Amino acid sequence: MTLKVLILNCTLKKSSKKSNTLALVKEVTTYFNGKDIETEILRLADFKIGYGITHEAVDADDQWPEIFEKVKETDILIIASPIWLGEQSSIATVAIERLYGGSSLTNEKGQYLYYNKVGGVIVTGNEDGAKQVSRSIIYALSHIGFTIPPNVDTYWVGEAGPGPSFIEAKGNQNEFTKQHAKIMAYNLYHFANLLKEHPIPVEGNVIK
Amino acid sequence: MTLKVLILNCTLKKSSKKSNTLALVKEVTTYFNGKDIETEILRLADFKIGYGITHEAVDADDQWPEIFEKVKETDILIIASPIWLGEQSSIATVAIERLYGGSSLTNEKGQYLYYNKVGGVIVTGNEDGAKQVSRSIIYALSHIGFTIPPNVDTYWVGEAGPGPSFIEAKGNQNEFTKQHAKIMAYNLYHFANLLKEHPIPVEGNVIK
Amino acid sequence: MTLKVLILNCTLKKSSKKSNTLALVKEVTTYFNGKDIETEILRLADFKIGYGITHEAVDADDQWPEIFEKVKETDILIIASPIWLGEQSSIATVAIERLYGGSSLTNEKGQYLYYNKVGGVIVTGNEDGAKQVSRSIIYALSHIGFTIPPNVDTYWVGEAGPGPSFIEAKGNQNEFTKQHAKIMAYNLYHFANLLKEHPIPVEGNVIK
Amino acid sequence: MTLKVLILNCTLKKSSKKSNTLALVKEVTTYFNGKDIETEILRLADFKIGYGITHEAVDADDQWPEIFEKVKETDILIIASPIWLGEQSSIATVAIERLYGGSSLTNEKGQYLYYNKVGGVIVTGNEDGAKQVSRSIIYALSHIGFTIPPNVDTYWVGEAGPGPSFIEAKGNQNEFTKQHAKIMAYNLYHFANLLKEHPIPVEGNVIK
Repeated sequence: MTLKVLILNCTLKKSSKKSNTLALVKEVTTYFNGKDIETEILRLADFKIGYGITHEAVDADDQWPEIFEKVKETDILIIASPIWLGEQSSIATVAIERLYGGSSLTNEKGQYLYYNKVGGVIVTGNEDGAKQVSRSIIYALSHIGFTIPPNVDTYWVGEAGPGPSFIEAKGNQNEFTKQHAKIMAYNLYHFANLLKEHPIPVEGNVIK
Repeated sequence: MTLKVLILNCTLKKSSKKSNTLALVKEVTTYFNGKDIETEILRLADFKIGYGITHEAVDADDQWPEIFEKVKETDILIIASPIWLGEQSSIATVAIERLYGGSSLTNEKGQYLYYNKVGGVIVTGNEDGAKQVSRSIIYALSHIGFTIPPNVDTYWVGEAGPGPSFIEAKGNQNEFTKQHAKIMAYNLYHFANLLKEHPIPVEGNVIK
Repeated sequence: MTLKVLILNCTLKKSSKKSNTLALVKEVTTYFNGKDIETEILRLADFKIGYGITHEAVDADDQWPEIFEKVKETDILIIASPIWLGEQSSIATVAIERLYGGSSLTNEKGQYLYYNKVGGVIVTGNEDGAKQVSRSIIYALSHIGFTIPPNVDTYWVGEAGPGPSFIEAKGNQNEFTKQHAKIMAYNLYHFANLLKEHPIPVEGNVIK
Repeated sequence: MTLKVLILNCTLKKSSKKSNTLALVKEVTTYFNGKDIETEILRLADFKIGYGITHEAVDADDQWPEIFEKVKETDILIIASPIWLGEQSSIATVAIERLYGGSSLTNEKGQYLYYNKVGGVIVTGNEDGAKQVSRSIIYALSHIGFTIPPNVDTYWVGEAGPGPSFIEAKGNQNEFTKQHAKIMAYNLYHFANLLKEHPIPVEGNVIK
């Protein structure tokens, strides 16, 4: 039984530029290697995504619906964001808004659509703000129906002030970040498997 | 197999005074009736709890260790908080700090102590701030090892400005709050059962 | 001496749709009538604004530079935002990111560009989240150089759960919101005048 | 005309232990030397401060009233806090709650009591969370009537993960933190002087 992992990289930079956030994403996904897991990473800055609280296209150019199809199919959803002024990127907020726009949809059992899906967060910045970004994203995912396993927030930040980002600072050698990346990957995997085999019972949570 | 639920009511008022937060807690716990669940509610303002990032007594009066014994035994932990200036009460922050102080302990398998425990949050205020309180508490619990099922944040707030609180405003008749209370109770129950029967595998998350 | 007020309305809806946020903005700006104040309100959803931490155009379509010219000229800047999932709109975050992108520029005295400008925030939502949005925006403006007078956060939200927004709910009759709108308008005005007449001395705050 | 500065050090540790937060406080206050400024630093952990949203004593032991007398007399109030789990200390939240408890009092002109007082924040942690603490405290002070000059949030944090705190890490050599400490000190001083000489006009902000 193959598990699907979808990672929305919310860097403000298009794929033509190097993403520190992507570099940390890869520290996490390396633990999926050798398991029956299909991982897809989308760089949202490469897409045209409209503004609005809906899962449907907001205009003719809006590419959210094709992303949303992948969200519906995935078992694990990870939001990856850089930090700006101590908060998540605007593109991460766009993603959350669009996910929220689909949150009142239900699955075939009448539970919210995101039930039995597992969520996590990855954050990089040259300094301060990672826990605030994690806090915002973990809560949003939980509030709209995702399950949050323990320790699924992996981050790296440097010392206060301007300074090198993850790649240049060799953040991948930070023992704390490495340990979190590993635990996050495994706990997402364990819970996705658990919910595949034992979906959330419908008692008490079916939406009329 | 009896499940244990521990609820830390973080109102600033001692038991001699009426707690709106407690009133909403009871809207949630009513759904545990008739199930094999033991519920205990502690009014933290009735205890002397010292300051510090440790699970051990910080001075001779410190009653946290007796509360911590109950935390270690529980399957489900709910933090219930009022809102002041749009944020959780100071007593809720004390509880989080003390829980954090025990977060590097491990279970008999070498995972963090709070693994296989399930967390949730209940918030009341006369106005605005419930999601910020939920965000803070959900993230803190998740970061230290609790599992967060979907939709385990129940809250009630009134319209902007000074106004009646939950009891006086008959917040228990709010359809949104009622539905959340029910879903929260059931999802905590489902996940606590799930993790009793299928504890989180140790692969990848044992702390050396 | 005419004061300039620039209001960035960060609703996700274009001008073809009714904005509750705009309705509350007008409750604030009504107090500017009869004073020597020029008020301009921009609906950011009507503009093409690129992603990036810079004040300069990020691509050929990017209209931020023309907005930034207005920011440079204004004495008072107000960010107005709706609430989604308890947080500011993605467009508000875009605005903050772009403002941040210009924050290392300096004025003719060598102080940060936004010195002697005064900031405030207006927030509407059908429920919960106003203080979190205010907290985020007030801090961001303060951190990049704006002066924050007392009580410059005006908001309206309704009771917990789905429900009518500001216009439909007649939020303009809420006494708390009305009082805040008035105090905010006057305190922005007082401080903008104060700083016109007595700019912040350069001692200690010139950037080399 | 002597200016008064009151600094509430919200470390969880009593004075018998070394406070990293205090060490950063002193980096800021050094800039007050040689000016006509009286600085007082209170270690709140040394006091018995009760819980409640009131400026009055909540029980016979409650020492907040004596602290509140100093708040009423000060021109500049700085809240200094460590970071735990990415947020301010519980003692900082206690201080904010008690300040909030006095926020509906008015001065002799009928404005809120904290008008013409200037606020700022100092934050230390071994890692991540400084901007979240600043955001929370800056907003709280602003919302209850303090004036927030630009750039009055000074912080130091280290790289992600456990690691040395401010003193051990020689955070006082961090150029970013040093510059912020200096600008903060001067801008607090400039605005306190400005408001001494030109108090906020009463038009529009008198509370009936």
